Amino acid sequence: MIIKSEREVLLNAINSVSKAVASRTTMPILECILITADLSGIKLTAYDNDLGIETRITEKCEVIEEGRTAVEARIFSDIVRKIENEGDIKLETNGSIVKITSMNSEFKLQERDADQFPMLPVIDNADSVIVSQFRFKELIKDTIFSVATNDSNKMMTGELLEIYGSNLRATSLDGHRISIRTIPLDKEYTPRSAIVPGKTLNEISKLLSDDAETIVELSFENNNIMFRFNETIMTSRLIDGEYFRIDSMLSNDYDTRVTVNKKDFIEYVERAVILIRETDKKPLVMNITDRVMNLKINTFLASYNSNILVNKTGNDLMIGFNPRFLLDALKAIDDEEVSLYMTSPKAPCFIRDEENTYIYLILPINFNPSAYDN
Amino acid sequence: MIIKSEREVLLNAINSVSKAVASRTTMPILECILITADLSGIKLTAYDNDLGIETRITEKCEVIEEGRTAVEARIFSDIVRKIENEGDIKLETNGSIVKITSMNSEFKLQERDADQFPMLPVIDNADSVIVSQFRFKELIKDTIFSVATNDSNKMMTGELLEIYGSNLRATSLDGHRISIRTIPLDKEYTPRSAIVPGKTLNEISKLLSDDAETIVELSFENNNIMFRFNETIMTSRLIDGEYFRIDSMLSNDYDTRVTVNKKDFIEYVERAVILIRETDKKPLVMNITDRVMNLKINTFLASYNSNILVNKTGNDLMIGFNPRFLLDALKAIDDEEVSLYMTSPKAPCFIRDEENTYIYLILPINFNPSAYDN
Repeated sequence: MIIKSEREVLLNAINSVSKAVASRTTMPILECILITADLSGIKLTAYDNDLGIETRITEKCEVIEEGRTAVEARIFSDIVRKIENEGDIKLETNGSIVKITSMNSEFKLQERDADQFPMLPVIDNADSVIVSQFRFKELIKDTIFSVATNDSNKMMTGELLEIYGSNLRATSLDGHRISIRTIPLDKEYTPRSAIVPGKTLNEISKLLSDDAETIVELSFENNNIMFRFNETIMTSRLIDGEYFRIDSMLSNDYDTRVTVNKKDFIEYVERAVILIRETDKKPLVMNITDRVMNLKINTFLASYNSNILVNKTGNDLMIGFNPRFLLDALKAIDDEEVSLYMTSPKAPCFIRDEENTYIYLILPINFNPSAYDN
Repeated sequence: MIIKSEREVLLNAINSVSKAVASRTTMPILECILITADLSGIKLTAYDNDLGIETRITEKCEVIEEGRTAVEARIFSDIVRKIENEGDIKLETNGSIVKITSMNSEFKLQERDADQFPMLPVIDNADSVIVSQFRFKELIKDTIFSVATNDSNKMMTGELLEIYGSNLRATSLDGHRISIRTIPLDKEYTPRSAIVPGKTLNEISKLLSDDAETIVELSFENNNIMFRFNETIMTSRLIDGEYFRIDSMLSNDYDTRVTVNKKDFIEYVERAVILIRETDKKPLVMNITDRVMNLKINTFLASYNSNILVNKTGNDLMIGFNPRFLLDALKAIDDEEVSLYMTSPKAPCFIRDEENTYIYLILPINFNPSAYDN
């Protein structure tokens, strides 16, 4: 294999596939990037057996001799990042050594056996769902925080993606809260759903552009999902099983509704969060009366007390939450004002808009009300 | 004690003293900031028993009732950083609780016993040495990297500061290299010297300004040094003992001198550094001939080979170095061109200017020359 490429395009391709390079694995070939050069151009592939990424370089490159090779990803990436940026970079293989040269520098590194590199799953994209990259990226950002980070319940480490009618709905939950976002699609699709690992969604959101005009194609299969965007394909293993029955947990009833300026509310809650340490899970107690919501937290470090103006309808209520959960939800909302719907100190609070394009359910924390009386 | 202050000035003062707050200590009082308020203003103090910092707030504050208190530094700093920035912040103590209030927020935290807070050493500053903050900061930056980071030789974890005539000289060494910088002072001073812990110099360099007009006063005592700048005093315990006899290791003789463009040389060496892993200390071998210096490194990851144009006088030479040590020295030098003075593959290399305002000595690494022949 002999190829030439501009440094920038090669570096971008390496950066794209790097997210799927395995680290700390017993199979060294998974720590490599597979480079394939043929008449259609140059293709880079990385695959950690769960997540696979393949990207093409079609411009500003030249295939002088077809072939393929595998190189250790980290050192290859370091070399291309540091090699001088004058003229093209040339890669040449001889079956044992890859020679990387530019104007004045020459690097040599060992080839690994490209035949050992596993094949990415092949997924049919005939009936794929199309969504704007920007929208899909936002959808992930606004739900990913309530994916469980520990593995004790595998299902909770993924997000449910559902296609129904002309909607895409994403749901995540971690046992204390649920996040649900719905975005409209360009047309109606046949219904389907998949539980996608949080890691996959995290990685793809780093690769998607902020441009609303570019699209990503989602192709669902039984055990895998494929995302296709720009010159890149990402495949991911799905989480097996039936997701939690969310709809039975949702309700539009409430006895207390509070509407508050979102930006102000975030600042007030952030002040409470500084008193929280990992080992000390004290609630932020909200005492809701007409027009004023009192916020109070007592931790072993200090206490915080403050009043924020609100619009309230319904009953007075005193209810406690993990302030970090409030913050995560509030920061995911774009509206200037947010509404909290509650029924009792023991029942979940819903932060949602009228159209249910977003629903954040947060379970309250028990507390002794007498400790928070003024 | 009752005081008021603008948030920004209080926050700046907290940030200044924070570097001397102890972490992981058996004396909880050392994790506190001491706040003293009297007619002259407000004073904040932190002291970890080695390093002490004291800073005054004299503007944009008001002492309503004199007094003093101690508060846990981290939470105090978090609160002041996050409290709303409208109007002044008020601190009020009652002997057990410190109340911190602003427009709409109220924090309460426990007072610690201010009487337990240790006194900073008192150091006479009658005969102090004056140097510009900018110059002193540069002096530290250009020598601190060769202070030893592990404690096996206590002396190597400090820098020797020497006043002689109208010069201030800083020396550091870690067993593989020596860094020496000399800066001129405004007048002649009586000679003195001290071995200052690297940590102290690191911390003070973060507090000094980049302004050449502002000054720092250095006061030397047997066991302590004091730095006075702006409204801040920093005291530090010194390292006890006699420093290494550096001058006997220095020499102006050489058999090979190489002069090279510094920026280019840095880039070439940086490319070699990417092949180095912690566990693999292979040398960068420089093969110096007339006009061309060949650079080569072979690590278990890959190899690198490149040529750089140089001006050489004297003998041809093949010599190997840890490329990181070369980089540290090169990056500390401001000149456009640098000169390397060498005698043999076993003898130290000196990177220095004609006036010896900087001298970087680097010991070479042994290697098998036949492995680097082309």
